[in-house]
Order: sequence, then structure tokens, then C-alpha cells
Amino acid sequence: MAGAVYVGNAFGKLAGSTQVNELGTIETPIVLTNTLAVGTAVDAVVRYTLAQRGNEQVKSVNALVGETNDGGLNDIRALPVTTADVQSAIRHASTGPVAEGSVGAGTGTMCFGWKCGIGTSSRKVPGGYVVGVLAQTNFGGNLTIAGVPISRSLQPPPAPPAAGGSCMLVVATDAPIDARDLNRVAARAIFGLARTGSEYSNGSGDYAVAFTTSPEMRSHFGDTSARARRVLPPDAMSPFFEAALEATEEAVYNSLFQATTITSRSGSATAIPISRVRALMRP
Amino acid sequence: MAGAVYVGNAFGKLAGSTQVNELGTIETPIVLTNTLAVGTAVDAVVRYTLAQRGNEQVKSVNALVGETNDGGLNDIRALPVTTADVQSAIRHASTGPVAEGSVGAGTGTMCFGWKCGIGTSSRKVPGGYVVGVLAQTNFGGNLTIAGVPISRSLQPPPAPPAAGGSCMLVVATDAPIDARDLNRVAARAIFGLARTGSEYSNGSGDYAVAFTTSPEMRSHFGDTSARARRVLPPDAMSPFFEAALEATEEAVYNSLFQATTITSRSGSATAIPISRVRALMRP
Amino acid sequence: MAGAVYVGNAFGKLAGSTQVNELGTIETPIVLTNTLAVGTAVDAVVRYTLAQRGNEQVKSVNALVGETNDGGLNDIRALPVTTADVQSAIRHASTGPVAEGSVGAGTGTMCFGWKCGIGTSSRKVPGGYVVGVLAQTNFGGNLTIAGVPISRSLQPPPAPPAAGGSCMLVVATDAPIDARDLNRVAARAIFGLARTGSEYSNGSGDYAVAFTTSPEMRSHFGDTSARARRVLPPDAMSPFFEAALEATEEAVYNSLFQATTITSRSGSATAIPISRVRALMRP
Amino acid sequence: MAGAVYVGNAFGKLAGSTQVNELGTIETPIVLTNTLAVGTAVDAVVRYTLAQRGNEQVKSVNALVGETNDGGLNDIRALPVTTADVQSAIRHASTGPVAEGSVGAGTGTMCFGWKCGIGTSSRKVPGGYVVGVLAQTNFGGNLTIAGVPISRSLQPPPAPPAAGGSCMLVVATDAPIDARDLNRVAARAIFGLARTGSEYSNGSGDYAVAFTTSPEMRSHFGDTSARARRVLPPDAMSPFFEAALEATEEAVYNSLFQATTITSRSGSATAIPISRVRALMRP
Repeated sequence: MAGAVYVGNAFGKLAGSTQVNELGTIETPIVLTNTLAVGTAVDAVVRYTLAQRGNEQVKSVNALVGETNDGGLNDIRALPVTTADVQSAIRHASTGPVAEGSVGAGTGTMCFGWKCGIGTSSRKVPGGYVVGVLAQTNFGGNLTIAGVPISRSLQPPPAPPAAGGSCMLVVATDAPIDARDLNRVAARAIFGLARTGSEYSNGSGDYAVAFTTSPEMRSHFGDTSARARRVLPPDAMSPFFEAALEATEEAVYNSLFQATTITSRSGSATAIPISRVRALMRP
Repeated sequence: MAGAVYVGNAFGKLAGSTQVNELGTIETPIVLTNTLAVGTAVDAVVRYTLAQRGNEQVKSVNALVGETNDGGLNDIRALPVTTADVQSAIRHASTGPVAEGSVGAGTGTMCFGWKCGIGTSSRKVPGGYVVGVLAQTNFGGNLTIAGVPISRSLQPPPAPPAAGGSCMLVVATDAPIDARDLNRVAARAIFGLARTGSEYSNGSGDYAVAFTTSPEMRSHFGDTSARARRVLPPDAMSPFFEAALEATEEAVYNSLFQATTITSRSGSATAIPISRVRALMRP
Repeated sequence: MAGAVYVGNAFGKLAGSTQVNELGTIETPIVLTNTLAVGTAVDAVVRYTLAQRGNEQVKSVNALVGETNDGGLNDIRALPVTTADVQSAIRHASTGPVAEGSVGAGTGTMCFGWKCGIGTSSRKVPGGYVVGVLAQTNFGGNLTIAGVPISRSLQPPPAPPAAGGSCMLVVATDAPIDARDLNRVAARAIFGLARTGSEYSNGSGDYAVAFTTSPEMRSHFGDTSARARRVLPPDAMSPFFEAALEATEEAVYNSLFQATTITSRSGSATAIPISRVRALMRP
Repeated sequence: MAGAVYVGNAFGKLAGSTQVNELGTIETPIVLTNTLAVGTAVDAVVRYTLAQRGNEQVKSVNALVGETNDGGLNDIRALPVTTADVQSAIRHASTGPVAEGSVGAGTGTMCFGWKCGIGTSSRKVPGGYVVGVLAQTNFGGNLTIAGVPISRSLQPPPAPPAAGGSCMLVVATDAPIDARDLNRVAARAIFGLARTGSEYSNGSGDYAVAFTTSPEMRSHFGDTSARARRVLPPDAMSPFFEAALEATEEAVYNSLFQATTITSRSGSATAIPISRVRALMRP
């Protein structure tokens, strides 16, 4: 399917991005994991892909694997993620509501000093299309929610020192948008982080992947004939940009609100107290 | 001097950016003007540079000229900017406080439906360095000031239709930062626009130029010998990133607060009523 | 029309490239001139475009203007190119054979120490499409023609010192190729210079512009609806890449073979003696 | 150490490139392998790095792993490369002459229809610096050696169908060159492929990595203080560019000349008959 990767700050190990941007195509499931497990995840995606029926002759697989560093809570040096874990995650992927909070690659991540993890959000765009964003959040800054400077009034308790920031954003749409414009949509996801108070620090690997599920934009390896595709032009992009900005902002908030306090040998990361946030949001 | 250009959204006519990013050097005054005057301004910078004492053999000039489109208020199709205007602006450039509001290339620009123009702001960074931002603002979105969603309560009166958005940001620092990291600082200026509610629309040419005035980073054309430079490393960048984010946000606000209502044959663009903003900002 | 700019080495003043790559569209005639005349040429393209019937409301023009530095032979500091010259060149552009050699922006350029200028070449691609290349050559290296190391046996007489290298390549095709793949085609034009012995020096601004004349790839400003386009996929690109490599190589040779000796106040640049080249080419 | 990655054509799986280009630093051994083993190699580099003395607190490793696809001769779908293989290769890396031909990641690669593999070459640059290039070659085109069109007279016997092209180039220098200029040096390595007759096809992942061993350009993670470095300026780069062009060309030839015929279950790839090449090269 058509896809693109926008690099906000490349202090991160996202594998597969250069081929995606050269060809405008994502050819595997997207996997999110921790910093030290990227190799294992790439290997797992390769094995998974080679094993799919119809892929008996496949000799090239471009795995797209992102990461954030949850090495504060998670003993990532023990390399606990296995090939089997990643393959299992791919096999059990399903439609429907997406698990949020302290789950998956977000199990150990922290944001603005609070426990966070995975958050999602979406927006409808005029024309009936949808833009959805999934955020794997692990960065610092001054938390701002819908314009309210929360961090001035509400500070997290001490937590294990972060091993590094980062944010992986995945933007999905069903609109027929080509890879060049998907890259521009992905850029707005990165820009949208600013609304939450992200500090975009030197050590934060901030990447956004965007793809479309539109059948118009599917392609087959080895196809050399011209094919008609109904594609939205650049001048139609502004509503998608706005949707990406807004959904990214909200996905970050949801990654906080859905997170639960996590304790490991390194210490505890505390979920943000929603009632106190609600009180601060009142005019 | 060392410099870099970060392209947020390139629906704009910034001349000279590719050479700046190839060589990491800005070699002329930076000029900001309107969309249709870029050629004239490039020509003026060339003429100005050729005429400087010591430049008698110079046969190559890379003018760096940015623009926004104030064609809503300004009859830019009449091409009113002349070579002499640009040369005069360069000759009268001076140190000291920078004129803000409805001046220069900001005379006809509009932002969030209000009259805006040129704004500046700066931050001190630990270590004693300064990061300053100048913003030439001309874009839309939902105005948010320090987290308060102003646009929900305060809407501008009707104004001439915008001819297109855009935002030119110029980031200056006295810190010894090389061109690669200046590019990363410039990126944070673009990201910082999100805090003000910028919609980063398809038609908005959002560019940031960053440069350093540090004597460490000066270079001379034709110099081929190695020279020692004391340069800050990437790991020292986070405070500069934060400064660029904050100063950009504030520079945009100042471009609004310093603007005065402007009326042309096309209609009026109204300055934002500061007292009403102040009332909305009260907790 | 769809287009792209590939930057081989950006020590050059190509105006308009960032917008072309953001939107994938070239919206004006492409102008080639000398280094110091880019501003004048941009201004001329703006004036020409504003004056076209149907453009009465146009307030944004992205002129695409390339240059090489022929300041060795040509007194470019006198700024001889005028707005009228450029507008006249645009108005008199016509179909049919392209003038080659010491003409236009190639009047004063030099290559491998010989007089050169403008050269063109084209290739047919399976499927019936054509790829044509125009080269404005002005660079150094060790001249190699179809693999024969000419420069080892044949050296040019002394000539005025070059004011700087550069090469502008324009690749045109009638195939329905989108902007991302046009960028990849343009890359091969840059790569193809190596076959001629180009040294790709620090001071050589090596840029390639690629565009398609295919009606499939036309677009209209302000159009926001999806439109079906029959576009060739990436997997169909290899023959176009090979055509761009070969046609670039041959266009450089033609820029030499069609050039005539030029004498100015600075001295003479000599046309390469074709009979001697022919003798060296014999097996 | 300072380093950069230049992407010629990104139909390849090079892991780690984005962080290298963001920070200008390579922090691990560079590993070259086959297309399907990149994940395993990344994992191996992570494990190797975590285990080094002094790295007990390291929680972030950016492995730089390149590949070409030798799936014509090599049954890469069997995933024969193990973590132990890669770690062993790193541990046994040594100074001195580099093994060339059908070795390592070049064991199964093919070039211009002939067996090839790993080749190296170097050039001395005025000032006493050295530029060395290692090429892992696996691509097609019309073989040209020092300008002689070999492929017109000498064609390889039938061989297993290539599983895809690609070329990984690694450029090393001892000169104090910063990451931005190393990127420009890497670009010339990619350009230099054209001299050998490379077709730069759609499916060929052509990447060049450049790094310097100069102590001036070393950096330490977490260092935030300015440090004086004696760095060569852009205007000193032309001889390095020429060296990269020439050494890349020669490294490709050596990857052919040093290769030995390899037979696998898929068939045989034949080493180029050097005596016949020598005969063709005679004037």
C-alpha cells in the first residue's frame, strides 16, 4: 500500500524508512517495539513474510519497525522480546478498537514524567474520509492539554530516569492519497506534537509513518504497466493536514489517560490523575 | 556565516536554500518580501553584493530571499517593490530593537484572520547564549495563545480573502552551532508554529532559516585549509531546541500584538483587540 | 505539469526547486541563464506569467530558473541579461530541433577546458515513450567519450580561468510518470555525468530537472477533487533510468561537438577538434 | 566517529541511516550482509555493543547494516546467517589487506552477469590524506572498464537469475571532514558507479556510507561542551570527491577481478576471464 515516513528528529532506529520513501510503498505489517529489539523485530517480520502463502519466491522484504526507548522501567538490555513474540503480535492483530495505555511497545514508556503508552484518535474529513493516528509516546516537555498548561499545576512524582525520549506516530487514512502527499500528512503529525508541549529534544526519535488503505493506492511488486488511479491532488490536502494535527494531539492525550501505573525493579511510573486534570481544565 | 534552511512546507518561493544547505553557509543579507518580488530582491542582493568593496572579483552570489503572500491587502500584481527599495532596506539595516507589526514584508500579511506582520522574540539559553526568532506571519488556523483557545471566543471581522498562507521564520543565535545542528534548530521553529494554532495548510509556505553570528563559524570563500572551530555538539542542542520552540511561539504572538489595522482598496484587516485577549487569558 | 528537481551538488542558484519538489508540479517555463541573472529571470517569468490571458487573478508564480557560471568568457558582472531578454526568449520558444552549442545560456560556458554550451539527446524507451535531455555544461574533469579517455591524448589550449563549474540538466519525457519517479529519473541524469568524466567538484552546481508532457499528469491549481490518472509504477522505471543515463552522456558530448570557438575580452575558448576526437575513437 | 549515508536509490534495507544523518555519527561497526539477514545483523550488533566493557549502562545502539541480494546463488530464504556469525565477523575484523572477491557478503553476488563480490581501492589526496572505498557489488548494466566497453565484446555465460541488484559502498578517510561533507563524498561514490556501466535500475539499492577515522572528528555520547576541532572546509573537498569517484570505479573492477567462479544448487556464476579483459584493454 502507498506510504511514507516523515523524520522529525532521527535519533531513533526506525528500520525500513529509506525504501518506503524511495518507492512510496509499505509492504509489511508495521511493528513498534523497544530500541534494542528492532533487529529481532525486523527478523520476525522477514520470517513471517517469507512464510505467507504465495510468497514462496519472495527474496526481499522491507520490514518497517519503529521503536521508543522504555529502558527506564523496562530492562531492555535483557533483550526480552523474541521473534516469536513479534510473530504472535502480527498474527493476533485484528480490526476493532485498538488497545491503549500501558500495552505493547507502550508498556514501559513515559511522557511528561507520567506513565503513558499507546494512544489513538481519529477525525472525519469532509468527503467522508477518516484520518486515524496511533501514538507511541515517550518524551518530555511541559504538558499542555487543549491549551491548558497542566504542568504548571500538576507535577508527576519521581520516576525512574528516562533512557531517552522518542515518539512513533502512525497515521492511517482510507483516502486515496499518494506517497508524496502522505509524507506531508505525516509531517503534520510531527508538528502536532508541539501542541501537547513536546520539547522535541535532541535525544527524542520523532518519526511519523503515514499510509492509506485505499484500494486505489495498492500496488503489486513487479507490475510494470500503467494503471489508472483516482488520487486526491495536493490542493485537497489541507483538511487531512488539520485532521492529522488534531488527531495526533488527542492521541498523545489518550496515551496518558489510558495508561496505568507501572512498577518495575527500577521504580514506578505513575498514571496521571484524571480527576485532577479535569479540575484544571475547568474554566 | 554558518546557516541552514528547514523546509516545513515548500509551497513558497524561498530562493537560495539549496546552496545554503549544501555548503552550510549564508553569504548575503537575508531579505523577506512578497511572493511576486522574489526575483527583484534576488537581483537587488546580487547588485548590492557586487558593489561592496573587496568584491570586485566576485562572480557568484547566493541571495537568500523569503516571502509570504500579502496579496489580499497588497496589490502585489503591480510589482511595487523595486531593486532600489531592497537595496535601501539592506543599507539601512541596523542593530537595536527590530521594528514589529505592520512593517516591511509584514505590512500586508494576515494571521488567523487578524492583521499581523513581523514579530520577534528571544530566549537566553544556559551557557549565556541567546536564541532570537523573527517571524513574518501570514497563515490561518485556530488562534491559541499560551494554551488559551482564543479563536473560540474572539473572531475577526471580515477581511479581504487571503491570497495564500505562509510563514517565514528566521532564527539567530550567537552560539557556535554548525550547519547540521542549525538545521535541527530551524526545524523546532517550524514545529513551534503548532503551539499558536497554525493549520500548516497546503498553500502555506512554511520555511525557517537559522544562522549563527558566532565568529567560530565564519568561513571565507576559497579557503581550503583546516581550521579549528569550537563547536557545540548535538548533545548540547536540547536547550536551543526549546528556546526556538518558545521564541517562535512568542514571535507569532508579537506579530499579532504589534500589528495595526491596515486598510487598502481591497478592504481592511483589523488588529486584534489586545484588551479582549487579555481578558480571555485571565484564569 | 508533473516535475521534480534532483540536486546533485547544490553549489548553484536554482530558484524554485523547493516548491516543485513539495507539490510535484512545474508551473512555468524553465529558464536557464547565468549565475548573476537568476533574479532578473525570476522577475521576467513572474511578469510573463501575470500577463498571460486567464491569469488575471494569479498572485503566486513559482519560476524555475537554473544557471551555470560562464563568468570566464562572459562579463556577467555587467549584468547584461534584461527582463526583456528573458521574456523574448520565452515568447520565441518553439517546437522542433533545439539550438545547440555556443547559444543561449551556453554561449560562454566551458567544459573539460574546451568551449561547450548546450547539447541535447534522446532515447526511445520500450513502450514507445521518449526521454530527451538538454544539458547546459560548464564543468571540469577528464573528458571520456564513450569510454575513450580523450583527455589523455588531447588537451585544450589555454583559456580564461573558469569562474566556477556547474551543469544544468533538463529531462523531458512524454511518459505518464509521477513526480516521485521523475525525481528518480532526474537522479540518473546526474549520475550519467560520471560517464563523461565529470569531476563533480565542490564548486559545481549540478542539478537535474525532470518533467513529463503527458496529459495524464497535468494539474490545475485549486483543484481538490480526485482524478484518475494512468501512471507508470516504479517497477517500470528501469528503462527510463537507462535512457536518462545514456541521453545525458550524449547530450554532454553534443554540447562539445556543436560548440564553436568563442573569443571575448577575457580570451578564447576553443571548440574541440572533432576530427582529432574521431581519430582517437577509432579502435 | 563522524559519518554519513548517501542514498542513491533506496530499494534496499540499510538499517540505521536516518540516525547517522541526523547526528552525523556512526557508533557501531558497519556490517554488510544479505537482504534477508539485516534483522539478524542488527540484533548481533546490539548484543555485541551491549557486551563491550564500559557499555554496561548503554540502552541505545544504532546498528548500521547494509545488504545486497545474492539470492540468485545463495538460498537466502533459508536464513543461514546467524547472530553468532555476525558477532564472529566483528570480533575477527582486523587491520591489513581486506579480503576481496567471493567473500563475506559478496560470496553470492553478481555484477554485469559475472561473479563478483567485494572489491577495494584507495587514492592518496594532496595533503597526505587517503580515501579508501570498499564495494559490495551486485548490479547490472554494460560493463565498461576504464572507458573500454567490455560488454560489447565479452558476454558472461548463463547464470542464475539475479534476485535483485544493489551496491553497498563504504568510503573511509583519515581526513578531518565533518558529516555534511562526508555526505557529499559519499555522493561521489554513488556517482562513480556510472563509470563502470552501472544501470542504477529500479530494483538496485545503491547506498554509500562515508566515515572518517580522524581523531578530530570523534565524539562521545552525552558530551555537551564545545570542543575545538580542526575541520577541512567545503572548498577543500574537490580532491576528495575525485578520489571517491576514482576509487569507487576501481573497487568495482577489483570486485570482479578478485572474484572466483561460484557454483550452488541454483547454478554457476562465472568469474570474468581476466586475460580476455586484458586483451580487450590493449590499444
